[in-house]
Amino acid sequence: MYALTHFRLCPHSRSIRVALGELEIEADFTEEFPWEWREEFLALNPAGELPVLQTEGGPAICGAYAVSEYLADRKTEEGSGDDVPLFPGDAAQRAEVRRLVDWFHGKMNREVTRELLTEKTYARMRPDVPQSPDTGVLRAIRANLRYHMSYISHLADQNGWLAGKDLSFADMAAASHLSCADYLGEVPWEEFQSVKTWYSRIKSRRSFRPLLTDRLPGLPPPLIYTDLDF
Amino acid sequence: MYALTHFRLCPHSRSIRVALGELEIEADFTEEFPWEWREEFLALNPAGELPVLQTEGGPAICGAYAVSEYLADRKTEEGSGDDVPLFPGDAAQRAEVRRLVDWFHGKMNREVTRELLTEKTYARMRPDVPQSPDTGVLRAIRANLRYHMSYISHLADQNGWLAGKDLSFADMAAASHLSCADYLGEVPWEEFQSVKTWYSRIKSRRSFRPLLTDRLPGLPPPLIYTDLDF
Repeated sequence: MYALTHFRLCPHSRSIRVALGELEIEADFTEEFPWEWREEFLALNPAGELPVLQTEGGPAICGAYAVSEYLADRKTEEGSGDDVPLFPGDAAQRAEVRRLVDWFHGKMNREVTRELLTEKTYARMRPDVPQSPDTGVLRAIRANLRYHMSYISHLADQNGWLAGKDLSFADMAAASHLSCADYLGEVPWEEFQSVKTWYSRIKSRRSFRPLLTDRLPGLPPPLIYTDLDF
Repeated sequence: MYALTHFRLCPHSRSIRVALGELEIEADFTEEFPWEWREEFLALNPAGELPVLQTEGGPAICGAYAVSEYLADRKTEEGSGDDVPLFPGDAAQRAEVRRLVDWFHGKMNREVTRELLTEKTYARMRPDVPQSPDTGVLRAIRANLRYHMSYISHLADQNGWLAGKDLSFADMAAASHLSCADYLGEVPWEEFQSVKTWYSRIKSRRSFRPLLTDRLPGLPPPLIYTDLDF
């Protein structure tokens, strides 16, 4: 049995929750507020970052990069091969998946998701963050989000799924970031029909359902967040 | 034949240069100043990030994450198996290598290397960065560097190499970041004897030599940078 330590609106954690769903791996879930820097959590992952996957009798696997590759490795070793591979295709195709994972978990996180969570979510939950969002910062985040949606649109038009004709961890990463922005009512869906079509495909998958039931106290999502026909 | 686009003091590029050396893969090298956002470079990697590995007749592999995994994949596929694997050991050990790669290429980069390069190197090369380093920022970077050296010291004392008893891409990543700080005369070697011992082992390897011949115009490294008996 696996145990995943996560935070419900952490995009990195969300991508692993979807990956576990796609691979039909059961896990116990424990939530952590990473900004609290609890000693017990730092003993598990000295970097203080989420998610962390604990394996029975094995080590703690820390961070979305190590966890996703571990889950992919595990598949190869066990060779069941029935479910969705996280990094499908040949070496060049897998490199394309990883380029895009880096794009969303790195670049989009820095330019959109992390900042959006700081301005709109942590402000309510963390004593060290100002209570009112900075309108100048929000304007910049919204411009960045449109840039990333244009890129997703370009990829979806070209490929169907983002890294090629098969669903991959790149889709799970991108959808996790967008789902956080969507929870906060920030996604201009009507301006990006291709992104909407792509997102509705992944949103309808069983692996995505647990994300749609997440709620933050005092900060409910807009109705569109759970609607599969949005 | 491979072609690598890199910047000589980019820690991510350096880690891949060392990896190519360890795997005895020959490549042509082209230098790029990523802050120039040249259109030709953005056509190669729309993220505008280094390094980029081009394969003959194949796609461009973008970023240290995709490139390192591609090189490791390639080894598995070709099965030569003679040289140093980037991610040695079983699935749990490989997860530990990746956790540490994330630590150095992510956390240490944000907290030390990127800021140090901005303050001390880009200031000379980029018109958009102030010419004089900010002493307050430098003080914070130096405190962060000591924290990361303590962590490297802890790992080296425990394992020999950072992720275990074998050299891995985690060592190459960590040494690449330290080598940038060392070029800028910022590493307090005498305070961290275990780090010095570990670094001197990787610094003496043939794969590391090209890094030691790098020079920036008008900004020579201290003598200790090239000295193998530092």
